[in-house]
Amino acid sequence: MNFNYSSKLLESAVNEFATLPGIGHKTALRLVLHLLRQDKSALENFGSVLIKLASDLNFCKICGNICDVDICPVCADQKRDHATICVVENIKDIMVIENTQQYHGVYHVLGGIISPMDGLGPADLNINSLEERVKEGTTKELILALSATMEGDTTNFYLYRRMNTYNLVFSTLARGVSIGDELEYTDEVTLGRSLVNRIPFSASSSS
Amino acid sequence: MNFNYSSKLLESAVNEFATLPGIGHKTALRLVLHLLRQDKSALENFGSVLIKLASDLNFCKICGNICDVDICPVCADQKRDHATICVVENIKDIMVIENTQQYHGVYHVLGGIISPMDGLGPADLNINSLEERVKEGTTKELILALSATMEGDTTNFYLYRRMNTYNLVFSTLARGVSIGDELEYTDEVTLGRSLVNRIPFSASSSS
Repeated sequence: MNFNYSSKLLESAVNEFATLPGIGHKTALRLVLHLLRQDKSALENFGSVLIKLASDLNFCKICGNICDVDICPVCADQKRDHATICVVENIKDIMVIENTQQYHGVYHVLGGIISPMDGLGPADLNINSLEERVKEGTTKELILALSATMEGDTTNFYLYRRMNTYNLVFSTLARGVSIGDELEYTDEVTLGRSLVNRIPFSASSSS
Repeated sequence: MNFNYSSKLLESAVNEFATLPGIGHKTALRLVLHLLRQDKSALENFGSVLIKLASDLNFCKICGNICDVDICPVCADQKRDHATICVVENIKDIMVIENTQQYHGVYHVLGGIISPMDGLGPADLNINSLEERVKEGTTKELILALSATMEGDTTNFYLYRRMNTYNLVFSTLARGVSIGDELEYTDEVTLGRSLVNRIPFSASSSS
């Protein structure tokens, strides 16, 4: 649906919102009109937060996580286990893992996974900086927490081959039936894998 | 889902997006991370467009439509029929009507409809400015293009009672079966009304 905007300003704001994923021109217009119904200061605030984000946002010099200063809160936390590095695809994965409250090591953000289809090779990812960290000799375990896809597996394999010389323990996330799932609805590949990789039963591991 | 943000800046940007209708924190985070993957200038541009919108946006002094200058393009267009005023609820309705390319008069934005449930009375709407326009004597027809709801009907009735003294033709949008609709799926009220208000058949009026 094309609109004739009576205001160029309105149109440019709608166009900005329409660049966002999952937001078309109709939704964008609804969002902008919603903002216009608010206080003027709310709109100014929205704008200045975005500008501040562009100018002030940093990425952690160690792990590549998003942060306001040079080193992110996780890397700066001396209580965490700095000998265990969890390798993730992007910063959203860090948030999801942090939310489980089950991990107490540090992270490394690759910024993607090896995907020839998208033209992403090892050189496009933050693998060199990971190798630098590992070379320091304090790292004991590398948890490869990438997507359970062909590309994720390829990246896991590449990292294993490249870092294997540094005397590390490699691990990946356990793959199996989701907690709460009924077997009937679990896909065959996952179910097959979780049979092959079955684990000793203990009272605490059952859901 | 609560996230621990490693960056206050990121968190405030996510919170801004999450104030928008239909956008929760998870979607907001996805949008902000999408913006961060773009060029820095894109983010700055997005922000400055919003700030410019807050500072520079005007509403037409005549009809209340959104515009960049004092008078909106519709009111400024001398080719349009200034004797016919189409009364609408909000500026989005203007865009929708303009899109039909079937209307060549001018508009008046009420900024809402009378809705005691929401605490909106006639005094909260741009009715005084409409009366001022009508008082000038050049207006011949008032098209009441409000929602086909109880509140819309109430507002129509109020406007009719108040402006009836000015020797105007009042009209409302035709209500009936939507073009492309099958009778089977048309609601009874609409179908009943469209029977009562049936129109003479002509080759051009059939769909």
